[in-house]
Amino acid sequence: MTSRFYAVYHVSCDAKTIEARAQALAIEQSVETPLSTISDPYVLSDIVGSIDSIQALDDGHFEVCIALATAATGLEIGQWVNMLFGNSSIHQDVILHDVRPSPELFAAFNGPSHGLDGVRRRVEAYNRALTCSALKPQGLSPKQLADLAGRMARGGIDVIKDDHGLADQAYSRFADRVAACADAVHTANAQTGGHTRYAPSLSGTLDDIRRQIGVARASGLDMLLIAPMIIGLPTFHAITREASDMAFLAHPAMAGAARIGPPLLLGKLFRLLGADATVFPNFGGRFGYTPETCRALAEAARNPWENLRPCIPVPAGGMTVERVPEMLSFYGLDCMLLIGGGLLGAEKCLTEQTAAFCRVAASFAMSL
Amino acid sequence: MTSRFYAVYHVSCDAKTIEARAQALAIEQSVETPLSTISDPYVLSDIVGSIDSIQALDDGHFEVCIALATAATGLEIGQWVNMLFGNSSIHQDVILHDVRPSPELFAAFNGPSHGLDGVRRRVEAYNRALTCSALKPQGLSPKQLADLAGRMARGGIDVIKDDHGLADQAYSRFADRVAACADAVHTANAQTGGHTRYAPSLSGTLDDIRRQIGVARASGLDMLLIAPMIIGLPTFHAITREASDMAFLAHPAMAGAARIGPPLLLGKLFRLLGADATVFPNFGGRFGYTPETCRALAEAARNPWENLRPCIPVPAGGMTVERVPEMLSFYGLDCMLLIGGGLLGAEKCLTEQTAAFCRVAASFAMSL
Repeated sequence: MTSRFYAVYHVSCDAKTIEARAQALAIEQSVETPLSTISDPYVLSDIVGSIDSIQALDDGHFEVCIALATAATGLEIGQWVNMLFGNSSIHQDVILHDVRPSPELFAAFNGPSHGLDGVRRRVEAYNRALTCSALKPQGLSPKQLADLAGRMARGGIDVIKDDHGLADQAYSRFADRVAACADAVHTANAQTGGHTRYAPSLSGTLDDIRRQIGVARASGLDMLLIAPMIIGLPTFHAITREASDMAFLAHPAMAGAARIGPPLLLGKLFRLLGADATVFPNFGGRFGYTPETCRALAEAARNPWENLRPCIPVPAGGMTVERVPEMLSFYGLDCMLLIGGGLLGAEKCLTEQTAAFCRVAASFAMSL
Repeated sequence: MTSRFYAVYHVSCDAKTIEARAQALAIEQSVETPLSTISDPYVLSDIVGSIDSIQALDDGHFEVCIALATAATGLEIGQWVNMLFGNSSIHQDVILHDVRPSPELFAAFNGPSHGLDGVRRRVEAYNRALTCSALKPQGLSPKQLADLAGRMARGGIDVIKDDHGLADQAYSRFADRVAACADAVHTANAQTGGHTRYAPSLSGTLDDIRRQIGVARASGLDMLLIAPMIIGLPTFHAITREASDMAFLAHPAMAGAARIGPPLLLGKLFRLLGADATVFPNFGGRFGYTPETCRALAEAARNPWENLRPCIPVPAGGMTVERVPEMLSFYGLDCMLLIGGGLLGAEKCLTEQTAAFCRVAASFAMSL
């Protein structure tokens, strides 16, 4: 029997036609031609998608599980995503809700190189939530950004990431920015005895990103920010595999999360391709995810899944220090809290506000 | 004055709050931090996004135009898309509807290397619509696919593309398939005096795609199929620039077109990055685009736009030979008609059905 993986869709449809709609979905995502045009017995038995199950959800919605051939993926992420949602992403009645990879797909993609435990070891933080902030706004010079980074590091934060919009702009070249911020963070660590990590944002093509990783490595860095849906999933997976000394923090930009279930895309898929931590919009912030979506996403990222390392959930998007206890009650300690504007708003007191953030995160742990 | 480009969004909102919603959008897509946290005068004057216009559409919908800084794009497609729709793609109330690039962005991306006129010259077809079909289904061997390709070429079709799901699978390796299909098409051309092009499908990383283009070039091919949203826009743009001897046919897989306006994504953006032809789902086929969307998409692809070459609109997705006259009445002759399953269903009579398709397309032109 040929190896199959399972794609789970949520389909808006009436009960009378759901069987036909599911069959059309199975064909669209496998052979993409009417069965009547296929005569080859191997294609019919091993390649054509088949309906595994159809289950009614609420009125007018069904969960459809389609079995698809592992062989047709070529064990490559682009072609796999093509089979999961390529043409069907254009159909407005379908959401890609979940996926169950085959053992061959787990082995090919293989997940985080470091994950939750590896990142905890790097920043020496074991019994509390991890803390994170962002360098903003866009438009500052390397010197200005390095100043912010140094002050946050002195406040004792675990990870300082670039804003995901910091790329290789004329007013802040990647090489200049990374050298300056890395130096500021290393200097602060040397003074405080801390272990703050600076994670610069990667952008461009595979060639560009390889050069950028070279710069980061030369600056003594071991953590990077990356937006998989901007650079493309094949580039993302290639990079996590070949730069496996680096820990990768995934950013959700361009995730257009309405059509691919966020727990699947930002939780499972980014983890499977090697994200060590995954940033997502927390409920009650600037984005519309519900608590249920956020909980499912965090669980998809860190719960046991085959033999993959846990990926760190990083709730973000307009968070404040005041919300830390509530967020930790919700997510527990195996997460990284990301507060950007909520720290930067402290301006002159940036180090002190950062320290307050770290203190609240650490004391919550101690009160457990 | 700093150079600006303009992003046009459709926003679901009530009239009382649209001004505030537009302002939040301008900040999200530029500095991503509250204005109160920004003190740098350069950032405030040159980098922060600003509302250019707000226009009421129908009830509860507004068209919002935001002016954003060209300098912040770094003239790189990933970061530009990040600024167009990165975080806002996660907001469910927003559609990215259109964009007006600045002169610097036009110069950086530069559009098709060949476009409509270049592809017409290659296949020597000047006063009629171009014709196209697809090799399917997934799962056939290189020999079986080459047999189909040879028979279509003998029918006189202009372009034979791989199904976009043909990648580098064990049952049909890219190198084997491309050599076999190229050979079959060249042999048929030599026999008939025709100019049929075979366009293999690219997949994987930049490294993989470079190797694949080497194989295609060695087989004497000069046209390729590529799915920009699968491989990632930065990889797509790098490839169209460095392999400028090739004509590129763009496929809409993973375009999830509900959230980025299809005329913008599949028409303008793919063209701007170098697609010589762009495949899209025609109305009345397997996908739900309206005639209005399809017309706007075709116009975005081929109408005059700065100094870019026209990109060929390729309506597809369940088309049949019977619909050719209606499609040509709708699109005119500056298009490429793509019929896949509708030809393959002829089975033994594939060459004859292909010839009938080409005849209908050519005779429509003659009757004008």
